[in-house]
Amino acid sequence: MPRYKLTIEYDGGAYLGWQMQGASFGKSVQGELVRAIGDFSGEAVAVGGAGRTDAGVHATGQVAHVDLTRDWPNRVVRDATNRYLKDEAIAVLAAEKMPDDFDARFSAVRRHYLYRIIDRRPPLTLDRLRAWWSPKALDDDRMREAARLLIGRHDFTTFRSTECQAKSPVRNLDRFDVARTDTGIECRLDARSFLHNQVRSMVGTLKLVGEGLWTADDLAEALAKRDRKACGTVGPAHALYLTQVDYPTHWEPLADTPET
Amino acid sequence: MPRYKLTIEYDGGAYLGWQMQGASFGKSVQGELVRAIGDFSGEAVAVGGAGRTDAGVHATGQVAHVDLTRDWPNRVVRDATNRYLKDEAIAVLAAEKMPDDFDARFSAVRRHYLYRIIDRRPPLTLDRLRAWWSPKALDDDRMREAARLLIGRHDFTTFRSTECQAKSPVRNLDRFDVARTDTGIECRLDARSFLHNQVRSMVGTLKLVGEGLWTADDLAEALAKRDRKACGTVGPAHALYLTQVDYPTHWEPLADTPET
Repeated sequence: MPRYKLTIEYDGGAYLGWQMQGASFGKSVQGELVRAIGDFSGEAVAVGGAGRTDAGVHATGQVAHVDLTRDWPNRVVRDATNRYLKDEAIAVLAAEKMPDDFDARFSAVRRHYLYRIIDRRPPLTLDRLRAWWSPKALDDDRMREAARLLIGRHDFTTFRSTECQAKSPVRNLDRFDVARTDTGIECRLDARSFLHNQVRSMVGTLKLVGEGLWTADDLAEALAKRDRKACGTVGPAHALYLTQVDYPTHWEPLADTPET
Repeated sequence: MPRYKLTIEYDGGAYLGWQMQGASFGKSVQGELVRAIGDFSGEAVAVGGAGRTDAGVHATGQVAHVDLTRDWPNRVVRDATNRYLKDEAIAVLAAEKMPDDFDARFSAVRRHYLYRIIDRRPPLTLDRLRAWWSPKALDDDRMREAARLLIGRHDFTTFRSTECQAKSPVRNLDRFDVARTDTGIECRLDARSFLHNQVRSMVGTLKLVGEGLWTADDLAEALAKRDRKACGTVGPAHALYLTQVDYPTHWEPLADTPET
């Protein structure tokens, strides 16, 4: 019973989020994958994902795993799943056969997120559901400096949704870069794992620093308070992208099955 | 009666194209601008554009002009128009007061277009209506070399829609670059003016060269035939962007009106 690792891209705008919910609630990314893989393989499958992205959040490198009875070549799993996803804004970028104990969620050692902000006076058109619009110009130097204060091991209660189900609010934030590009500001955040709404809460509050409404000290104080009420703002979901999930090098893909 | 130059961005997917048509046909970019500027100024205005983009074609630097009775500061024209465009995927990036004889279409000396192709096996999600999907890998070196054959002064009858209303099929193509980027292939084309469907016809046919179905010689022969039936394929509208329109330097914006 081979296990496949799937690397997945999607436009989160069309879905209730990663997580499967009752059919009456609407479409989820996980639910569409379960349906598509089930349709092509004829099997009832379970699909486990590395990151349970919220409604509206995009992915260019989500990872999931699925067990199939038949030992298909990787290419067949990828292309056949995509064929059954043809009316969806979801695509399998790669399928790779993995050892049985590989788990997309529990084997992951690092998640990478991108958060895009476009600060310009005119509203967005082509990037409307791809980035956060700030009609006010943001000071990215101040944002970059303040972001550094959040890097490291902290109790992130302030930047965690009240609905977050993680046992501990302590996380190690390894990266929080802020870069000015041609099209706006790109925030890149890496950690082994994030709390619910952590990226959107941190970036939302950092934007207040960029607007000059908060100082870097205000941000440090908010973190120290360990109180959700101290969070400034939560950025919208449609500007957030799960771009990559890392695994230890001992999870090498197995040899592919030859095509017949 | 001041004349304003407007620089405009839009997601062409929501419109029948630039050109205003009867209200029963649906929305056009020009029609929405006429409505929005009319609503904010209380005047019945005409809006002339530099490029009459087809349905689905995007713009990041379309240019238009409009005459208003009142001498508004540039910023007011831009922001007030955007306010009345708030439910549309159209934004005025800049408004600048110009001499009376500036004409967005007839004063233009160069139009710049971008055409995006993403060649990968998995279907597109986030770029679905932003680029042309080629499930086959394309040889961008061959495309780059073949594109050079189209640069210069030619009779482009082969690459012109049969509905094209231009008197002459002769045009000067100044640039046709093909670059491989992180996300796919970007074709950049510049000319004083283009024939109807010229960019989409040339890029569509060039893709056949990238697939190895045509040689560069086939492309040169197709051009020499001056026959629409010799055109290979026409690329889809949703991958095309009007990015910039150039004017001679003597069309400098006038001094802005002070805000009161």
